[in-house]
Amino acid sequence: MQFASDNWAGVAPEISEALTKAGGQFAEAYGGSAVDQRVDALFSDVFERSVSMFFVATGTAANALAISAVSKPGGVVLCHEEAHINVDECGAIEHLTGGTRLRGLPGKLCKLAPEVVADELSGFDPAFVHGGRPVGISITQATEAGAVYSVAEVRALAEVAENLGLPLHMDGARFANALVATEASPAEMTWKAGVDILSFGATKNGCWCAEALVVFNDDLASDIRWTRKRAGHLFSKNRFVSVQFEAYLKDGLWLRLAAHANGMAARLADGLSDSNRAQIAARPQGNEVFVWLAPDDIRSLRARGGSFYEWPDAHYEDATEMRSAGLQLVRLVTSFATTADHVDQFVANVRS
Amino acid sequence: MQFASDNWAGVAPEISEALTKAGGQFAEAYGGSAVDQRVDALFSDVFERSVSMFFVATGTAANALAISAVSKPGGVVLCHEEAHINVDECGAIEHLTGGTRLRGLPGKLCKLAPEVVADELSGFDPAFVHGGRPVGISITQATEAGAVYSVAEVRALAEVAENLGLPLHMDGARFANALVATEASPAEMTWKAGVDILSFGATKNGCWCAEALVVFNDDLASDIRWTRKRAGHLFSKNRFVSVQFEAYLKDGLWLRLAAHANGMAARLADGLSDSNRAQIAARPQGNEVFVWLAPDDIRSLRARGGSFYEWPDAHYEDATEMRSAGLQLVRLVTSFATTADHVDQFVANVRS
Amino acid sequence: MQFASDNWAGVAPEISEALTKAGGQFAEAYGGSAVDQRVDALFSDVFERSVSMFFVATGTAANALAISAVSKPGGVVLCHEEAHINVDECGAIEHLTGGTRLRGLPGKLCKLAPEVVADELSGFDPAFVHGGRPVGISITQATEAGAVYSVAEVRALAEVAENLGLPLHMDGARFANALVATEASPAEMTWKAGVDILSFGATKNGCWCAEALVVFNDDLASDIRWTRKRAGHLFSKNRFVSVQFEAYLKDGLWLRLAAHANGMAARLADGLSDSNRAQIAARPQGNEVFVWLAPDDIRSLRARGGSFYEWPDAHYEDATEMRSAGLQLVRLVTSFATTADHVDQFVANVRS
Amino acid sequence: MQFASDNWAGVAPEISEALTKAGGQFAEAYGGSAVDQRVDALFSDVFERSVSMFFVATGTAANALAISAVSKPGGVVLCHEEAHINVDECGAIEHLTGGTRLRGLPGKLCKLAPEVVADELSGFDPAFVHGGRPVGISITQATEAGAVYSVAEVRALAEVAENLGLPLHMDGARFANALVATEASPAEMTWKAGVDILSFGATKNGCWCAEALVVFNDDLASDIRWTRKRAGHLFSKNRFVSVQFEAYLKDGLWLRLAAHANGMAARLADGLSDSNRAQIAARPQGNEVFVWLAPDDIRSLRARGGSFYEWPDAHYEDATEMRSAGLQLVRLVTSFATTADHVDQFVANVRS
Repeated sequence: MQFASDNWAGVAPEISEALTKAGGQFAEAYGGSAVDQRVDALFSDVFERSVSMFFVATGTAANALAISAVSKPGGVVLCHEEAHINVDECGAIEHLTGGTRLRGLPGKLCKLAPEVVADELSGFDPAFVHGGRPVGISITQATEAGAVYSVAEVRALAEVAENLGLPLHMDGARFANALVATEASPAEMTWKAGVDILSFGATKNGCWCAEALVVFNDDLASDIRWTRKRAGHLFSKNRFVSVQFEAYLKDGLWLRLAAHANGMAARLADGLSDSNRAQIAARPQGNEVFVWLAPDDIRSLRARGGSFYEWPDAHYEDATEMRSAGLQLVRLVTSFATTADHVDQFVANVRS
Repeated sequence: MQFASDNWAGVAPEISEALTKAGGQFAEAYGGSAVDQRVDALFSDVFERSVSMFFVATGTAANALAISAVSKPGGVVLCHEEAHINVDECGAIEHLTGGTRLRGLPGKLCKLAPEVVADELSGFDPAFVHGGRPVGISITQATEAGAVYSVAEVRALAEVAENLGLPLHMDGARFANALVATEASPAEMTWKAGVDILSFGATKNGCWCAEALVVFNDDLASDIRWTRKRAGHLFSKNRFVSVQFEAYLKDGLWLRLAAHANGMAARLADGLSDSNRAQIAARPQGNEVFVWLAPDDIRSLRARGGSFYEWPDAHYEDATEMRSAGLQLVRLVTSFATTADHVDQFVANVRS
Repeated sequence: MQFASDNWAGVAPEISEALTKAGGQFAEAYGGSAVDQRVDALFSDVFERSVSMFFVATGTAANALAISAVSKPGGVVLCHEEAHINVDECGAIEHLTGGTRLRGLPGKLCKLAPEVVADELSGFDPAFVHGGRPVGISITQATEAGAVYSVAEVRALAEVAENLGLPLHMDGARFANALVATEASPAEMTWKAGVDILSFGATKNGCWCAEALVVFNDDLASDIRWTRKRAGHLFSKNRFVSVQFEAYLKDGLWLRLAAHANGMAARLADGLSDSNRAQIAARPQGNEVFVWLAPDDIRSLRARGGSFYEWPDAHYEDATEMRSAGLQLVRLVTSFATTADHVDQFVANVRS
Repeated sequence: MQFASDNWAGVAPEISEALTKAGGQFAEAYGGSAVDQRVDALFSDVFERSVSMFFVATGTAANALAISAVSKPGGVVLCHEEAHINVDECGAIEHLTGGTRLRGLPGKLCKLAPEVVADELSGFDPAFVHGGRPVGISITQATEAGAVYSVAEVRALAEVAENLGLPLHMDGARFANALVATEASPAEMTWKAGVDILSFGATKNGCWCAEALVVFNDDLASDIRWTRKRAGHLFSKNRFVSVQFEAYLKDGLWLRLAAHANGMAARLADGLSDSNRAQIAARPQGNEVFVWLAPDDIRSLRARGGSFYEWPDAHYEDATEMRSAGLQLVRLVTSFATTADHVDQFVANVRS
């Protein structure tokens, strides 16, 4: 009953098998092999247009290099105050960009609202060098609170950005889960909606290490081969990331894996809700369930093998009420590897 | 007949098998799982003392974070002028350290000589802030020219470093090959000889992605978990690097793989030498053969499937003579995956 | 009627005269001359203990190098959300530190409260590398809202910092004004109250360019000569900053200049308050008056030669009420060069 | 008899007087005052075209921000191996650019030769990311060895740079001395010869602190207001730098000051040469004399009040011969403040 994080899951069998098959061959290093080239083309197929694509070791690196790509000296990037880049990257963005600042804005379920962004942007005066200048907007899809932006919501933010000539970055650590939730295509969710640069994560959804930076804007792409190399993120055996992505993207495996994870989250939320011993904080859209539980139940669930994290609740409107009722917010994450048995057993444990 | 680089080889079967076995399980992310802990202990076994150990995605990252660990503001690190960190990392060291400078020194076969280092160090005056200050020495083992430092040579450099309180870094992208060549133990070649911090590469020698930073000096280790994370090099599924290292280090697999590669290099050098159509630039100690060939032979070898790079020769004493004779320097790299057949066929092609 | 900023004032006559006298002589560059040494000793006299002292070109540089001195990789410095370092340095802190983050906290009149700081610090978990680690606390004295910390308030914050081994930085762009307001000695306001490092500004209070970084903690001081040089802040003719500081500190000139400025601010606040056409936002403690005025009055005052800035009011409790009443917040800054005539004329203009 | 450096001289009387006059007035901060605008126009007059101009605190800062302006990720800037930026800035360039590397090339009297630069540039392969990419060329005028590039020599280097689309930076710490030596106009020596960006130093030639970055290429200028601010180099009382430059540039004062310094250097070289106790290392073109002296004479000259530095001689062709003859290289720098009496007395001391 592992609900700590989707990165606690292992590797999907199809991907593991592809790696094993590819392991024994010689091939050109640093991205020049046949599979690297096939996957390059595959990304363009998936996104229905020519894209630039760069593998890196982690989502942290993808985000930091994406923000590097939009940065200028004195730059400020707007994001949600709870955004992963703002609170969970140990300063990687500030470090790898050479000092770009992140400005966190409030918003329900970790979503940015166009009017909040527009209002903040109106506070910058190009003549006032002291305050710096906005250089981009970053959103997380699905968000850190498990919510999903609709295509229309992404477009609305992109319009605010475009009005000021600012690029829009999407942190897609759980991009597949968001796609499945919205039934949008990769193209609709990204460049067609105004996204300029995407951190495309596959590690959480069944790969062992497969993170790509996907760029829809040629101006932003031109320096990334250099920024990636000097950040130490150009794999010599790059082709083994390609091998993972080839299996991942082939025949829609990635969407099936995500659909399974999302389905497990829905089943979990339903079960918990029915149990009357848990309050769902927000109906899950992707593969994360946030739920209020009693401390005794938390202890008991862990004692019976449940694995999950307690979570900060400051941004939930009913936090005060729930805390008064003695409840604690908990995050439960499902993955491609979560089984219905895991879910049902966990729910049964809650009930008893 | 792949001699382009050892990173063109795939994955050793034992390592591939271990990855496949481990793929299907849940485990704690970010280095907290059982295999992570086993491998942590295994590194201490291999080095015969407690060490701090950090995985990163590439040798570039290992080197840059190692130099970060020794850096101070205004710092200068001495290395060979042809050192990988000085010419082949796209500025990663300067970038990730926030401006530490590398000063390249001359030396035969890319080896630093203690007296050259001592002389350079004597030129720094602590009272002269403009010139900066030396903060460390970095050597490559085996070197970029395929040579290997003996334990005594490492110790001699370490003594120069210690006299000024400077740490000694070893770039061990081909550490196993150097160990096998010298028959020294990992401990003898590193901390017993005065090495403070080691970039321990396993990717070139049979892993698909396994690079570790090994620290023998607690003061240098304390910040690395932070510098690694903010450089985007903390893998979420860190355990799959651990799985590779566990198979790699178990029962001496790594040394057998390297011994094979070194043996193939020796066989290749012998064959080429006997052919009378190639001049060995220096007797190979590890798994790299540098050889002078005629341009016509180079073309012909490639036409028959040989893969290798032409190499800069500026630092070879007989470069002028060889160029006059119409010869070109070529690098041939063997690996765990090189077979005697590959070698013999290549030599046969040279002869014919 | 110049109330735009104290850095619109020129140079105090005593300081100008000292510069003129010193101009014609040869002397050692980079801080090695006789006057540099005299001023070094003078700083220790002023602070009643041995201090390390470094001149830089601007308050921005002093703050950035101070935060550099306390920084560690992954570091976060707590400050007020309206702190100058957080909003008005164009990212200098993030840039020159190589990625240290600032976390802005709320607090009345731009003052940090010990309990708010302690609460924020409790949210950091040393085992959770993703979140980074707190490395220091920074306060502004006098604050950006014109308030002044008492010695007891500084000490209370220092105790919170010391509990976690964190250094305390004071941005003293208006240090003299704060000293005069509290009647504390320089020693009482700084190291005796637990301040580790001080940005000691003199430019706003009558010098043309004289900013010093004063360090009370030897561990923090050791790298600053290197960080200053590599930031381009080691003046070759450093002695002309020394000449300014010698005149500034001699016989208490600096405190007389600040006392004058503070007195003018009080006179201005009194006059405005009596006028019944202005609402004082907070009783001035230093040399800044924040006042609510009607837009028509603002226009009229400017038309009659008044110079001042409108100011963001988001952090004033009565902002909503004042805005509803059609009033706008305005900042008026006095200086050593402000005369009673300027003040009285401005007040008269308000009245009429 | 002060020949240690031109930055040991004080302030020219005309400049001191202008500062005194300007000291007592209110004016807009951060470069917005009337004198700031006058000086902005004055720079365009001096250079016979519209230029962008930015004051900073030191030559180190001017050089670092200039190199920042030309930098791109993975960038390498070519310069002379003895260039000030390469050996005497404590890593400021690498730090403030976020990791741009400097590659030092050999050349007589610290001058770069076009063919050496072209040869080095030919070694970069845009497809080989590991090696980085060239992003600019930097020369020092007058050089660190006291030599001066002719306009034709600058143009020849600019052509090599332009062939690859690389900007050319000139470190003009002693720009005025070079102009006087060549009788070229500021325009001829810079943009007309292909210089894109100039560090224009005035501190060594009679100001107390006046360093400007002058940009002839709009693309390079656009970010500098941001990079300057975040480096802490935007003076609040910027106008006092303007005041210095106004007096400096007015009626050719700067060229008269430099002509005097150069004349004193020539007089010094002539006198030393005639003494038969000193060997001139190279005929001075600007205001620096490099001369071989016997250690006994060095001691004796210092005992009688001479102030100067011994200098590294590794790059002088006759160094071995001179050392064998027991001679030591010495640098003697003249300035606007050097008198004929100083020179003659020093020469007399050498003779006796």
